[in-house]
Amino acid sequence: MMTLLGTHLNSARLKSDFDELGHIGETNEGGVSRLALSNEDLEARAWFAGRIEDAGLFFRDDEVGNLSGILHSPHANAKTLLIGSHLDTVPNGGKYNGTVGVLAGLECLRAIKEAEIELPFHLEVINFTDDEGCWQSFFGSMGLTGTLDETHINDIRQDNGSFRAALFRAGIYPNRFRFARRDPDSIAGYLELHVEQSDRLCRNNTDIGVVTGIVGRTTCNFTFYGEATHAATTRRERRRDALHGAAIFITRMYALIEEFPDGIFNCGNVVVKPGGFNVIPAQASLRVECRHPDAQTLKTMERRLVQLAQTCAEEGKLTLETEVVLHRSVARMDTGFITRIEQVCQRMNYSYERMVSLAGHDAQILSPFTPSAMIFIPSVNGISQTPDEYTEWEHIEKGTTVLLHTILDLAGTGT
Amino acid sequence: MMTLLGTHLNSARLKSDFDELGHIGETNEGGVSRLALSNEDLEARAWFAGRIEDAGLFFRDDEVGNLSGILHSPHANAKTLLIGSHLDTVPNGGKYNGTVGVLAGLECLRAIKEAEIELPFHLEVINFTDDEGCWQSFFGSMGLTGTLDETHINDIRQDNGSFRAALFRAGIYPNRFRFARRDPDSIAGYLELHVEQSDRLCRNNTDIGVVTGIVGRTTCNFTFYGEATHAATTRRERRRDALHGAAIFITRMYALIEEFPDGIFNCGNVVVKPGGFNVIPAQASLRVECRHPDAQTLKTMERRLVQLAQTCAEEGKLTLETEVVLHRSVARMDTGFITRIEQVCQRMNYSYERMVSLAGHDAQILSPFTPSAMIFIPSVNGISQTPDEYTEWEHIEKGTTVLLHTILDLAGTGT
Repeated sequence: MMTLLGTHLNSARLKSDFDELGHIGETNEGGVSRLALSNEDLEARAWFAGRIEDAGLFFRDDEVGNLSGILHSPHANAKTLLIGSHLDTVPNGGKYNGTVGVLAGLECLRAIKEAEIELPFHLEVINFTDDEGCWQSFFGSMGLTGTLDETHINDIRQDNGSFRAALFRAGIYPNRFRFARRDPDSIAGYLELHVEQSDRLCRNNTDIGVVTGIVGRTTCNFTFYGEATHAATTRRERRRDALHGAAIFITRMYALIEEFPDGIFNCGNVVVKPGGFNVIPAQASLRVECRHPDAQTLKTMERRLVQLAQTCAEEGKLTLETEVVLHRSVARMDTGFITRIEQVCQRMNYSYERMVSLAGHDAQILSPFTPSAMIFIPSVNGISQTPDEYTEWEHIEKGTTVLLHTILDLAGTGT
Repeated sequence: MMTLLGTHLNSARLKSDFDELGHIGETNEGGVSRLALSNEDLEARAWFAGRIEDAGLFFRDDEVGNLSGILHSPHANAKTLLIGSHLDTVPNGGKYNGTVGVLAGLECLRAIKEAEIELPFHLEVINFTDDEGCWQSFFGSMGLTGTLDETHINDIRQDNGSFRAALFRAGIYPNRFRFARRDPDSIAGYLELHVEQSDRLCRNNTDIGVVTGIVGRTTCNFTFYGEATHAATTRRERRRDALHGAAIFITRMYALIEEFPDGIFNCGNVVVKPGGFNVIPAQASLRVECRHPDAQTLKTMERRLVQLAQTCAEEGKLTLETEVVLHRSVARMDTGFITRIEQVCQRMNYSYERMVSLAGHDAQILSPFTPSAMIFIPSVNGISQTPDEYTEWEHIEKGTTVLLHTILDLAGTGT
């Protein structure tokens, strides 16, 4: 089925790319560490640039470090269809997350080029800078869509010196980020192939997830303040224990989430001061992530969470500081793209199901800017961001096939 | 009442000492930072040595850095009655904790010397090194009693390099610590005047606390292990969240303490890994202090605490590591000394009550070695170890008076 219109997806070449790249930043545990702008990320970027040149594609980079290979359309005034993802990873992350989307995109360009198909749009495979947020989540896609602003690299609340130094070292001049912005009228859309990271496809034995939307996300900081008195000599009823308050808040927060079946709360860390074993904690700071696919429900979750923190503070005679540090809106994928992806799945006889993405992706940043869509392939057991992350090669082939044929359909040259 | 037997307590001189010393390591907030072996502590030690010499007392130091002034008895083979406390403080601690006991002791020696009383024992005022545990809690008193061992300065689990460097800088050769040990037969007893740190005396308007014992203390480390998977893409029922388990443990621990009216639990810190806001915590380490004045009940508390941690781990599908890092036995004060202190209070018409010390003191280390006792004076509102720590001067005078007359009673020269 890969020979339609003479377009051949070269699975062996894609696999060889995948294996080569998997050694860049490989860890002892079999994962990869390619933190954005690290030595390993720079090595991966250089490698990717080399693959683009080897394929005879046009190479492009921009002012926020996004790297692209372009297959130009012969048509004057053609728009650009972007496909891609990211090559950076979390520390000791998996080899599939992000990587699959970039390499599959590259393979699509090569296959279409080799088939000598003339597209009505420029086809651009793009590696977005710092999707994972080692420095600034979605730095590359925010730069391209013009949604970065000065605070992202000059936040007065934090020292951005090392981020700026890392950018300079990668040849990216932080003050020139505005020049990375593209004109939305020049872009035809964005398609991203990605591993699902959850276990819905794996459990259901489904080949392809057709993403309808990406959960919205609000991140809040809560700081409980108590009093750092001597743990042994302070009477029990006079304790004002910030950590105790935070612990009650955490336990009740995970009880509250039961009211929101599709919602997620996560508290990934607590920082306690002064931290002495025999001192009552005076300060406990925690960051909570809320996610929900429905914008209205996400707001309700936020409100309930803040109320809960206030109640816990009052009960513990604590004071509370609350700050919303990040809000990413719920993203809707383009219905036209969704339909086309489903049609390709039907034609290929691949099983598919619609689903919401529970994790954030560059497509979330692209979707308000240009019609966007995501194709998910199964993560075995839903394991993600660890060395054990795994996707069957067959599913990478199927996902790449769906990506390729969606492009061809959009080009009006599909079957 | 200070003129009995011609022995004059010079309150103005004591106050002048107290005020002078309060400037050494004074902080902007009005507290003091004299961490053991710091510049400020060394300055305080030099100042104290000077006061001893000014008073014409015999100066002594030992191999663990304890500093003493001695008023010798004319009797051959006289034993030594130790009185004292410590001049070191916690960071930005109070001006009373420890200091009062050392300076009051010095004043007693001066008053007895000036009254030309011949004592049947050598009277030694001692400043113990590092009571607060900046490096090793009770380093000085453990050295004197021969309960220090090699692990305290060469613990293979931690780098003691900076501790050893600090000792060397203070002129203390860490490998010679064994020579600081005294022969218990040479010691007549130990008396320590100290601020109460709790608010029992202050609430009850009592002048003097007669300490009957010091709470025992067990410190346990608990580490809960879960799995660091993606917070958004991991199904709720598959979360193995170490911090959630720790939070439940903390809340239940403070519920459990209600079964032990005289007991104390404190969790002063939690350290979470990996700590990413969008990653489920894989590890949460916390240290819990248990205190109780009854040895048997303390054991029960420990057992219940460990059971509770196990239950919380099981419920959260977590694994648990438990380690007892420190155990200090319940200390009993000498009943003979207790009776004498109470008799002095009665004679002076000072109100007094018996009480357990909720905080640890050098007397806890001395008590198995030699008959020991403590005299508490009120801490206003029980505030302790902060710049707001305060004790009325009148109570310092009363406490010093009780200390002086207890010494005179023991010498058989009291009223």
